[in-house]
Amino acid sequence: MLRLSGERLTVVYRIRADSLTEAHARARDICYEQTVELPEDLPIREDIRGQVVGRIESLRPTGPASFEAIISYAVEIVGAELTQFLNVVFGNVSLKPGLRVEAIEFPEGFLRHFRGPRFGRTGLREVLGVWDRPLLCTALKPMGLTPQEMAELAYEMARAGVDLIKDDHGIADPPFCPFRERVPRCVEAVERANRETGRRAVYMPNVTGPADRVFERAEYARRAGAGGLLLSPGLTGLDTLRALADEDRVALPLMAHPAFLGSLLVGPESGIAPGVLLGQLMRLAGADATIFPNYGGRFVAFSREVCQAIAEATARPMGAIRTIFPVPAGGMTLDRVPEMVATYGTEAIFLIGGALLHQRHRLAEAVRDLHRAMGAA
Amino acid sequence: MLRLSGERLTVVYRIRADSLTEAHARARDICYEQTVELPEDLPIREDIRGQVVGRIESLRPTGPASFEAIISYAVEIVGAELTQFLNVVFGNVSLKPGLRVEAIEFPEGFLRHFRGPRFGRTGLREVLGVWDRPLLCTALKPMGLTPQEMAELAYEMARAGVDLIKDDHGIADPPFCPFRERVPRCVEAVERANRETGRRAVYMPNVTGPADRVFERAEYARRAGAGGLLLSPGLTGLDTLRALADEDRVALPLMAHPAFLGSLLVGPESGIAPGVLLGQLMRLAGADATIFPNYGGRFVAFSREVCQAIAEATARPMGAIRTIFPVPAGGMTLDRVPEMVATYGTEAIFLIGGALLHQRHRLAEAVRDLHRAMGAA
Repeated sequence: MLRLSGERLTVVYRIRADSLTEAHARARDICYEQTVELPEDLPIREDIRGQVVGRIESLRPTGPASFEAIISYAVEIVGAELTQFLNVVFGNVSLKPGLRVEAIEFPEGFLRHFRGPRFGRTGLREVLGVWDRPLLCTALKPMGLTPQEMAELAYEMARAGVDLIKDDHGIADPPFCPFRERVPRCVEAVERANRETGRRAVYMPNVTGPADRVFERAEYARRAGAGGLLLSPGLTGLDTLRALADEDRVALPLMAHPAFLGSLLVGPESGIAPGVLLGQLMRLAGADATIFPNYGGRFVAFSREVCQAIAEATARPMGAIRTIFPVPAGGMTLDRVPEMVATYGTEAIFLIGGALLHQRHRLAEAVRDLHRAMGAA
Repeated sequence: MLRLSGERLTVVYRIRADSLTEAHARARDICYEQTVELPEDLPIREDIRGQVVGRIESLRPTGPASFEAIISYAVEIVGAELTQFLNVVFGNVSLKPGLRVEAIEFPEGFLRHFRGPRFGRTGLREVLGVWDRPLLCTALKPMGLTPQEMAELAYEMARAGVDLIKDDHGIADPPFCPFRERVPRCVEAVERANRETGRRAVYMPNVTGPADRVFERAEYARRAGAGGLLLSPGLTGLDTLRALADEDRVALPLMAHPAFLGSLLVGPESGIAPGVLLGQLMRLAGADATIFPNYGGRFVAFSREVCQAIAEATARPMGAIRTIFPVPAGGMTLDRVPEMVATYGTEAIFLIGGALLHQRHRLAEAVRDLHRAMGAA
């Protein structure tokens, strides 16, 4: 006889269906598919049917052929593992078209298993010593530069007043720019600039890589003096971010990149709402900052409202989990900074890559203008 | 001055666009977005533009508002890492609606970095000692059973003649069925049945779990005598499968489950073709068998043609990489077995869960009928 605690994790699904009857059948299907993985008409023991099978808490129409179902699951079947959490919320039903995760409510009994971000907004501001404005981030690019060329660019960016200088996420460990050569060079370059400016800019190398290399690279970067790390959890698995955040031998601020997660985000009828995946889940997994494609930039997928939902999720109360920085990015131009300040406020990191590179001949001036625009909040 | 080898990885993208001009602009955007991540109009050094930026090999209309672009990338920017491979093929552009990966052609210079499946079709047949028919697999369910109850079911399945007995993919390490208690019990149960039948059925526990636990669980399972392992790479990251296949301390047949990958698969306009992701990429990463939702089953997403494309990809020539088993699954009923044999031939694993559980009172007879139907190929 199974005796579970009764504490429940609640998930809001958007369901495509032509009628309330069909929506109800689809909601019941989610309850079974995500737990016992048996059709409802097979005999299932009563204690399992009552406690393990998901439960429909509510179901209502929200638009043409669109319904909202709130379904709850026992926290015990989710356990303390992010992999199993993702599986219960959206594992098998990801394969059924017209189902989307719109919101998740985490019970205390689930949240207490997670330490979350090690730094969060306050911790990262302490590292940088910047308190009164949004933070400025850039990416070292393009791929094809040598470690020496990356380091020169890192120096110039730090010298000009950029706070966070990260690898472009596409640069992992290519033969023409090996990780172990690039990292110490860029660290040294940023430290040199810091000695000259008196600021505390940090270099964040990209540690996205093979499952058996991520931690090795992260520890190497830490020993080399890197001030933070970049990871793409869509490529490594979300729990690799969690494990990296929990690793005391690393203990550096982490920035999450959304590469390869797009198919979960851009379809209006499948996937997971961006505020949930890039906001809540990156934060739960331990990112101190979460990059997402800003509205009106190079990526057209997200509206202003979607971006605001992500930003909102980075600071919403979430047990003891720290607040983190939203990082709007993707083709941001310098003249949009005042609008971004109006949208995101000062508790944000603005990631400006190409547009700053374009101003390389007058970088100090361009960054000074940016600081001024950011201070105008 | 960058000097790359000239060897290229080729990706076929389906592009939504209203005109050839728009399709061409989108194809060029892919070339830049997936490599240098700069807009085309920014100055880029000539050696980088010529060698790092992707190259359009061809572009043609394929239907209303649909185009096919073949784009190639230098193997050096992909390197020897699956994470970086996924990133170059579909990292950032996954966030741009209306782009889908339809096919990938792997050059020898990329494939030689991968060992692939350790067993493959021949190796798995050797383990089981079954040569003349499709293999039969079942899943231990429903979630909510105790380890003792799982073991009883495993015993009955092995006794009846099921070849591969795996954990339901939703059972990881719940408090009511801990991994370390379940595995030795199920191993013992299957071994006991094998002693009685003279067959060599194997138990495959689910090792999907936290990034820092997968290998620990896999090694524990190996020491406990498990005959194979189940992993959901959509939850752990695809490269965890690769690392598991490469790990000599594990060295067990691996079955891959598609949980959480659905949003990449079900949208016709975004994601990666199922034959590529569940066929080629699971195989490249080292799965000996790849589970997918069969047409006409509980999951409606895939057509018969899509399923055949997956099956075809498991055996297509791919350098020195072994052929693997397609595993159609998801609400398979006993009466569909002849049709499945007609579709997939004998080089397949038929995964039948709920329907066999429904026959638990006459399991030996049901499995005997199945063997007969499978032998009728």
